[in-house]
Amino acid sequence: MTDASAPSARRFLDAAFGRPVDRPPVWMMRQAGRYLPEYREVRRSVSFVELCRSVDLATEVSLQPFRRFSPDAVIFFSDILVPVEAMGARVEFGDGGPKLPEPVREASAVARLSRFDPADGIPYTGDILSRLRREAGERAAVLGFCGAPWTLACYLIEGGASKSFAAIKEMARREPGTLRRLLDLLSDVAADVLSYQIASGAHAVQIFDTWAGELAEDDYREWALPAVGRAIAGIRRPGGVPVILYVNGCAHLLEAMAESAADVLSIDWRVRLSEARRRLPGKPLQGNLDPGELLGKPEETARRTREMLASLGGRAHIANLGHGVLPGARLDCVEAFFGAVREGVSAPVEPVLRA
Amino acid sequence: MTDASAPSARRFLDAAFGRPVDRPPVWMMRQAGRYLPEYREVRRSVSFVELCRSVDLATEVSLQPFRRFSPDAVIFFSDILVPVEAMGARVEFGDGGPKLPEPVREASAVARLSRFDPADGIPYTGDILSRLRREAGERAAVLGFCGAPWTLACYLIEGGASKSFAAIKEMARREPGTLRRLLDLLSDVAADVLSYQIASGAHAVQIFDTWAGELAEDDYREWALPAVGRAIAGIRRPGGVPVILYVNGCAHLLEAMAESAADVLSIDWRVRLSEARRRLPGKPLQGNLDPGELLGKPEETARRTREMLASLGGRAHIANLGHGVLPGARLDCVEAFFGAVREGVSAPVEPVLRA
Repeated sequence: MTDASAPSARRFLDAAFGRPVDRPPVWMMRQAGRYLPEYREVRRSVSFVELCRSVDLATEVSLQPFRRFSPDAVIFFSDILVPVEAMGARVEFGDGGPKLPEPVREASAVARLSRFDPADGIPYTGDILSRLRREAGERAAVLGFCGAPWTLACYLIEGGASKSFAAIKEMARREPGTLRRLLDLLSDVAADVLSYQIASGAHAVQIFDTWAGELAEDDYREWALPAVGRAIAGIRRPGGVPVILYVNGCAHLLEAMAESAADVLSIDWRVRLSEARRRLPGKPLQGNLDPGELLGKPEETARRTREMLASLGGRAHIANLGHGVLPGARLDCVEAFFGAVREGVSAPVEPVLRA
Repeated sequence: MTDASAPSARRFLDAAFGRPVDRPPVWMMRQAGRYLPEYREVRRSVSFVELCRSVDLATEVSLQPFRRFSPDAVIFFSDILVPVEAMGARVEFGDGGPKLPEPVREASAVARLSRFDPADGIPYTGDILSRLRREAGERAAVLGFCGAPWTLACYLIEGGASKSFAAIKEMARREPGTLRRLLDLLSDVAADVLSYQIASGAHAVQIFDTWAGELAEDDYREWALPAVGRAIAGIRRPGGVPVILYVNGCAHLLEAMAESAADVLSIDWRVRLSEARRRLPGKPLQGNLDPGELLGKPEETARRTREMLASLGGRAHIANLGHGVLPGARLDCVEAFFGAVREGVSAPVEPVLRA
């Protein structure tokens, strides 16, 4: 029997496969980040991209939230555009979000991007994961991650964040073959990258399809879903390595997301977890407190966290936020979030069979 | 009997109240805009804000899409921040979207904003509407509009567009009384502004709560819904003037939106109209083609438009986009959109009783 107050990789993996747990495991997307004073201290001397490439420093910042909050998972510090840079795209990592100064808008630009061996192109990502696995042992699940093909294609084609996604929507309609080739390539790169992360020590991997929520369901099924499906199918993984799929703004896409081969669906804060459970009985879910709840008062954070937990009854649930933690998150609220999960479920809960 | 090929204010109003129509009325959000060469020509000599304040030019650009496409509605050219400026906030209208260089973050900043008489503060908005009513006659419904309190509060508090809405979420949790006062004020201003627009000649009004889709349902019910409800309740309108409520990203909010007193719900492109109809039987709906469909090929635009029309069978439906038309929209695709609606329904359709 595990100690419910201590973190555990096993608890994380059990919940990811819908097996019984003493309490839901918990972590936060972007938990190694600017809201932590010790992270800001490291960033005083290195840029974001230098930090991604430094095995020592990236390992250190990945572990900072583990030391402070004892989450059940430690995600390695990196960025979804690190592999995109290794494909041959120019990426500028700045404080206003990454920019790609030469957007990919034509077949010739797609042809200049290439599949690569992550052990050669981004060996530091594997080294960080190996170090984390050694340091965290089985006390926390070590998580790898990558961007989903659709979301990476948005970055490449739009050249950065976008309000309207006009460029990729235009390409989908006027040059569908070019977009399809780009997505296929990104699927293969995602599969290679996640396979390398798993070989390096990741217990589980998360695929961030942050911007797929922009698509109506028909378009999601035409573009984003087959691409992420191809990525998942290409991952070389032993059976015990779950894949988590995150989409922001996914209220209209839950059933389609469930048709990917992802083991766990990570849900944004606008969907009620109880409704997601009703629509996808038994499917392991991750989420989904509004990151805004960490900007307020700790008692209220704890109350909302307990409500969230109660809505799934602790079954097949990995507690998390509905999106990445905000730079302005308050440490007392973050502590209240983790504390509420650790203390919120006092008795072991019933197992849920997977759908 | 109306001629289905000709535009008609009556058709618009009938559809808005769920009465039988020969075909769904049609217009496009932001139809007077940069995708039109004649609009860009006008903008060569005047800034955006000068255009909003010029009765002659704003009337002219409002009518440009009517002359070209014969929509069933003409929306007056303005911006949702025009009334905010008249409240005493500094607004900079730029090409990257409006900015408010002095964000409202404290009670004292809220206290400096004031309710005003639109006939004094923004008389040109009424003049534009009166002119449009005279010029369009009953050939097209003349539409007024304003921003919803929540969305305007986002602008005021964030200082412009935001990815995370951290500032307003923090205020909601730490200074709820201040946010409540700001929303109350914005509700009263919205009611005053829409009342003035109606008195000046608007056949119908639309309230844009573009950013309320950011909120989980509980928070929508706590903040955005009561504020827009207070605005609607405060509108001085004869019974024949419908109110349309638009929310972007509203898949998770449909039932709550329907509890506002809005006559028509305007739905973004990610919700299937057939699902919205199922969840809100009989409620008049507006929307919801993906604006990205106007970036592709006209045959495909027409096909998607016909699919959209078929999903509601022409009942209690105002055909529109699911968001504003994009600057890169192609004229042949826009023509295909309007053409498909005009020709798509050949026989009169059955009336739908309102829920």
